[in-house]
Amino acid sequence: MMQAVGGHLIADLYGVNAIFLEKIQPIKNIVEEAIAEGKLTKISSDYFQFSPVGVSGIVLISESHVSFHTFPEKGILTLDLYTCGDVMYLFKTYEILIGILQPESVKTTFLQRGEY
Amino acid sequence: MMQAVGGHLIADLYGVNAIFLEKIQPIKNIVEEAIAEGKLTKISSDYFQFSPVGVSGIVLISESHVSFHTFPEKGILTLDLYTCGDVMYLFKTYEILIGILQPESVKTTFLQRGEY
Repeated sequence: MMQAVGGHLIADLYGVNAIFLEKIQPIKNIVEEAIAEGKLTKISSDYFQFSPVGVSGIVLISESHVSFHTFPEKGILTLDLYTCGDVMYLFKTYEILIGILQPESVKTTFLQRGEY
Repeated sequence: MMQAVGGHLIADLYGVNAIFLEKIQPIKNIVEEAIAEGKLTKISSDYFQFSPVGVSGIVLISESHVSFHTFPEKGILTLDLYTCGDVMYLFKTYEILIGILQPESVKTTFLQRGEY
């Protein structure tokens, strides 16, 4: 069986309420609280507010990173969760986020990164 | 034909020289210069030095993000380049990085993100 250096959950969320997509808050707090509750370990984070609406956010975690980009005019949030640790925490964080953001539909891809 | 909010190039590089994988420098400069030469637009960046070796880096760009994680003991660097703009610049940046890092092999996946 192959091993891998990391697990990468790629999720495109559709039909997300605009309140979560337009401004840095509340999505910043939602993502950082999900990371904490999911027992991932934040190192640092950066957010960028597009004008007039739209947000990019990236959180460096000791297990790798969480990033997202929002597209308010389309109701879309694209999310990446990447861990070099136990994927259980990654999926926990993901479930917390989905529970709050309540997308109408989600397209997910899971990749083993750096298989060897 | 479907449209998408972004293009995401996922690349796992194998057989990379340890000099590129162990410390924040030189990989930080290599990545940021490739982003500049590839005409992507840096907003901010964060790097983390693992002890004793290994680096995580994440660059927020106005087109989305570039991130990487290194695994020196395995000669692996995993790379993500995500753009909401013209993928030409993303591939240009990727080619510059590959030209410098000279991996023995690469596994790539290209995803259209947020298809609608």
